Amino acid sequence: MTDVQQRADAGVLAVLLDGEYAALRARAREFLVEHAAFHVEAESLDRDAYRDRVRDLVVEAAARGLTASGFPAAYGGSEDFGGNVAAFETLAYGDLSVLVKFGVQFGLFGGAIHQLGTTRHHDAWLADIASARLLGSFAMTETGHGSNVQAIRTTATFDPDTDEFVIDTPDDDARKDYIGNAARHAEAAAVFAQLVVDGTGHGVHALFVPLRDPSGATLPGVRIEDCGTKLGLQGVDNGRIWFDGVRVPRTNLLNRYGDVSPEGVYSSPIENPDRRFFTMLGTLVQGRVCVGGAGITASKVALTIATRYAAERRQFGAAGQPETVLLDYGQHQRRLLPLVARTYALHFAQERLARDFHEVFTAGDATTERRRRALESRAAATKSLATWHATRTIQECREACGGAGYLAVNRFAALKADTDVFTTFEGDNTILLQLVGKGRLTDLKDEFGSLDGVAMARYIGREAAETLAEKVIARSVIERVRDAARGHDEGEPGGDLLDPAYQLRMLRTREERITGSVARRLKAGMDAGVDPAEVFSRCQHHLLAAAAAHAERIVLEALLTKVEAMPTGPERDLLAKVGHLHALSEIERDRAWWMEHGRLSTERAKSVTRAVDTLCRELRDDALTLVAAFGVPEPLLTQEI
Amino acid sequence: MTDVQQRADAGVLAVLLDGEYAALRARAREFLVEHAAFHVEAESLDRDAYRDRVRDLVVEAAARGLTASGFPAAYGGSEDFGGNVAAFETLAYGDLSVLVKFGVQFGLFGGAIHQLGTTRHHDAWLADIASARLLGSFAMTETGHGSNVQAIRTTATFDPDTDEFVIDTPDDDARKDYIGNAARHAEAAAVFAQLVVDGTGHGVHALFVPLRDPSGATLPGVRIEDCGTKLGLQGVDNGRIWFDGVRVPRTNLLNRYGDVSPEGVYSSPIENPDRRFFTMLGTLVQGRVCVGGAGITASKVALTIATRYAAERRQFGAAGQPETVLLDYGQHQRRLLPLVARTYALHFAQERLARDFHEVFTAGDATTERRRRALESRAAATKSLATWHATRTIQECREACGGAGYLAVNRFAALKADTDVFTTFEGDNTILLQLVGKGRLTDLKDEFGSLDGVAMARYIGREAAETLAEKVIARSVIERVRDAARGHDEGEPGGDLLDPAYQLRMLRTREERITGSVARRLKAGMDAGVDPAEVFSRCQHHLLAAAAAHAERIVLEALLTKVEAMPTGPERDLLAKVGHLHALSEIERDRAWWMEHGRLSTERAKSVTRAVDTLCRELRDDALTLVAAFGVPEPLLTQEI
Repeated sequence: MTDVQQRADAGVLAVLLDGEYAALRARAREFLVEHAAFHVEAESLDRDAYRDRVRDLVVEAAARGLTASGFPAAYGGSEDFGGNVAAFETLAYGDLSVLVKFGVQFGLFGGAIHQLGTTRHHDAWLADIASARLLGSFAMTETGHGSNVQAIRTTATFDPDTDEFVIDTPDDDARKDYIGNAARHAEAAAVFAQLVVDGTGHGVHALFVPLRDPSGATLPGVRIEDCGTKLGLQGVDNGRIWFDGVRVPRTNLLNRYGDVSPEGVYSSPIENPDRRFFTMLGTLVQGRVCVGGAGITASKVALTIATRYAAERRQFGAAGQPETVLLDYGQHQRRLLPLVARTYALHFAQERLARDFHEVFTAGDATTERRRRALESRAAATKSLATWHATRTIQECREACGGAGYLAVNRFAALKADTDVFTTFEGDNTILLQLVGKGRLTDLKDEFGSLDGVAMARYIGREAAETLAEKVIARSVIERVRDAARGHDEGEPGGDLLDPAYQLRMLRTREERITGSVARRLKAGMDAGVDPAEVFSRCQHHLLAAAAAHAERIVLEALLTKVEAMPTGPERDLLAKVGHLHALSEIERDRAWWMEHGRLSTERAKSVTRAVDTLCRELRDDALTLVAAFGVPEPLLTQEI
Repeated sequence: MTDVQQRADAGVLAVLLDGEYAALRARAREFLVEHAAFHVEAESLDRDAYRDRVRDLVVEAAARGLTASGFPAAYGGSEDFGGNVAAFETLAYGDLSVLVKFGVQFGLFGGAIHQLGTTRHHDAWLADIASARLLGSFAMTETGHGSNVQAIRTTATFDPDTDEFVIDTPDDDARKDYIGNAARHAEAAAVFAQLVVDGTGHGVHALFVPLRDPSGATLPGVRIEDCGTKLGLQGVDNGRIWFDGVRVPRTNLLNRYGDVSPEGVYSSPIENPDRRFFTMLGTLVQGRVCVGGAGITASKVALTIATRYAAERRQFGAAGQPETVLLDYGQHQRRLLPLVARTYALHFAQERLARDFHEVFTAGDATTERRRRALESRAAATKSLATWHATRTIQECREACGGAGYLAVNRFAALKADTDVFTTFEGDNTILLQLVGKGRLTDLKDEFGSLDGVAMARYIGREAAETLAEKVIARSVIERVRDAARGHDEGEPGGDLLDPAYQLRMLRTREERITGSVARRLKAGMDAGVDPAEVFSRCQHHLLAAAAAHAERIVLEALLTKVEAMPTGPERDLLAKVGHLHALSEIERDRAWWMEHGRLSTERAKSVTRAVDTLCRELRDDALTLVAAFGVPEPLLTQEI
């Protein structure tokens, strides 16, 4: 019978979502299922006991090979960068303190030794780090400097007499702060400090610095305090570290990008100090890639719980009949389904990001500067959208579950609290989007130097903004304008809203127009002789809009590319519809912009809203399939909803 | 010198915000300051000890007279309804577990005895409740029924042989759930149950039911379990209660709106069961009024911390200069200042609501049905906007403080967790807005019966929707359309954006147009013979938009009315600007709607965005003044930011 429509299968979709690392993800899920009772157990433990259990789980994860992808074969690993991200994303279904401590140990601490160190450091420590025999911290952030890492004030001063570096914390503002693993477990840390040789500063470098002796006592000159209770992630022992004349051998300098000879001569393969700094930071992009992925995973957990609840819970209805299931209410569909759709879109954007990350890092020094910069921009864009999405989604899901959502047993308490800092750590989202926005304004990175607002504003002042915009943007604005105008005339009032090409054209047009217009505003401000900081401040909101528009475009592009590559069938049909809902929800949200810029008639704007309503209604019966495909292990799902 | 502009004074604004209950608020602040260290102390306590300390503080608040306003003079109070709200709002600067337990004891439990009981109940219990000698619960919600209270399933069956009611929990779905005070401290509860007399149900009524003996042991037939860890409010002992043949004297029925004679004859001053039910619920509106106020207070705390941090914290900037203060960044102004402005607007809307509440309840039975309904609608509208605002504001402020915002000592952890349920309890916000929307569709309440969607849709089907809309809306649509059209032509492209009359006209037009159009859609659906539940589901999102538009209008109106009444001077000038920022932020947020409906040209829409930018920049230097006026007691403010 041709009119029997085959429904999409959650299993088929789950395979699609798990992608090429399905086997690794399956192993990570097994590990989580074995420890599914952990969050209940955690509740009964005091802080120290909880933290020790978290450490035990991190150690066990290493023993189970879940960290192997992160390290070279010589040290027990498989150096599979994409696999490392996949393992991290999957572990995010479980307790997020375990995840973050895992990330600190293997990703940040291990990653710094791996990426910033050289063979002697790898030989000395990587095997022990990979197996979690050597626990460590990543000591970068200071109380006074979180986002502006380049301005940290801890010093590492070379002492040629003893062939050592001396680490010092000048004052409380420069204490290392929020350092995961530091308060209780770390035996050592990758410490970021201003390198000083013979009175000359060479900028931020990292050193391997022991913190504790085998008994757990801090070493002389090291002072550590607990950061105290946090909003979430209580299982992670964040601490503050002060250094007072702590000495380490010269060879503890992680010297891939900068070294000091016994004679006290500084050398670096990268001449420009700004470029050197950003290159070093760039090698640590993995943390950013991972956190965005974890945010998406947390959103999946929240949406699975809330959608299942909505499909069961009844409230109100016609007299004499069973009460109505929440998911049958139009508003409830509107609350949940666009978030489900966006989670799919972000999943595929994250998959694309992880692939780029894998390729760039597998290529190592053979990759190009341009590819590295593109990766960093994509990581920043995806991380900020993904983590803001997590905050919003978890909140909406909690509310959609009413009072039941407020019970800790139903997981939203931990999901909310633990993911809340995802928008801040591994790069504050606003700063990251700013980075994306600046990147969009030029690919001439060297011209930018420190990438700060003033330098950028000056730069814009030197160039014709229109030319710049055209140089940056792949296809010419004119072509886009023509395309969009065509789209505008064609389908009115709605026929081709469901054409992915139209949807993508809309997002591209917005991106290009905003980028061009913020460039013009920056230039005009400079031309008028306004203080550069003031120019930047006034244009900042606009610049962030440009960045967000770019981020939204690449997310949609990733989703559409994925759907296009699927074999025909009910799963493809369903994901195509999910794509429509995602794209049109975004167009609906910001439809004012397109109207203001003559790219959307008011009638067509209204039809976008109607289309979103219709898509939500049509997807209602596939809602459970869509969340089942997220593959949240059943034992990790709520117990009382 | 005429060009020396006098700056607004925070003290003058604080007096304005504290309003007529300044003395009472000052006493509540004193109480909080004395216990300012409580949240630090609370961290070191286990759950039971924490809860006992919370109870002690609630008892002490009563001893300090902070609850007096809630009760009649005969029982040690002053029966000042407005004062009661003011005390609650002010206590919300402090620990919110104390606040919520306070609200359960004096507002919900005490309020039920007060409002639903009669003299015999007042004489027996009110003095002890007011002094917290008798601790109690408000046992309404069941696991299966939170929003749809009318469908709760606990029964109170009259036994004429013993002149008693027998309370029963038919199954786990009907257990009382989330009952504050129940898990540990309540000796009694106001229990809501289906009243059954001689096999006939008379709908939901409340009874005074003892739960525990003086030793704290539960009484025979009563079973209580702890709800376990929640997302927040751990200091409140929420519990679940099952009743198994629990007997109470017939006279324990709180019989203001329904009574049973010893002979088993049911009587009520209100014939219609639906009307009776909603009248009873209406007497409990105080909780809703209070929670909205608490949400606004919590927003003030968050904004004070974040604004002060933003005015101190520096990050990035031009080389060789001090780093830039966060508040000098355009984006940071954009993040915080519209929220400050909206907090002012909501404060004045809440003040207006509290005054209406005071007047209606002071008038008692002398008030009109119409006024009561208007109060309930205003309470629902204000509570939902205020509590969603709290969730959003606290989140934004946490993020704006970066990692520092994630430390528990800086209060966002508790603020986020404790206020999260404000959007759910005392009426789920979505359900409340739905109530507002339905109320806007008709003032012919009796026609509606149960107010459920189907009945409403049927009702709409019987009336000409256009006529109905005109009857409901105070001024005629035609007049509004004329006004708005005038406004539209006049000031283009921006001159009169700062005219409060224009701003209000915009919000009124939107409200009236959406209300009219949803009425037409409902009618059209019914006319077409679509299943009423389906019609409602499809129009629900639209109906909620109508309600939100109404709520936004009354909030702006309250703000503008307040500013207009202020004496001229720098404080009035400042609040006028705050009003502009609030109004234009709202118009900016939903500008698509006005464009789609021909009430805003695209050029004018862009000028709204520019005006918001400008207002944020202009208000930057008054930001600290605006938050200082919130009057958060200094010792309650953050310790490490």
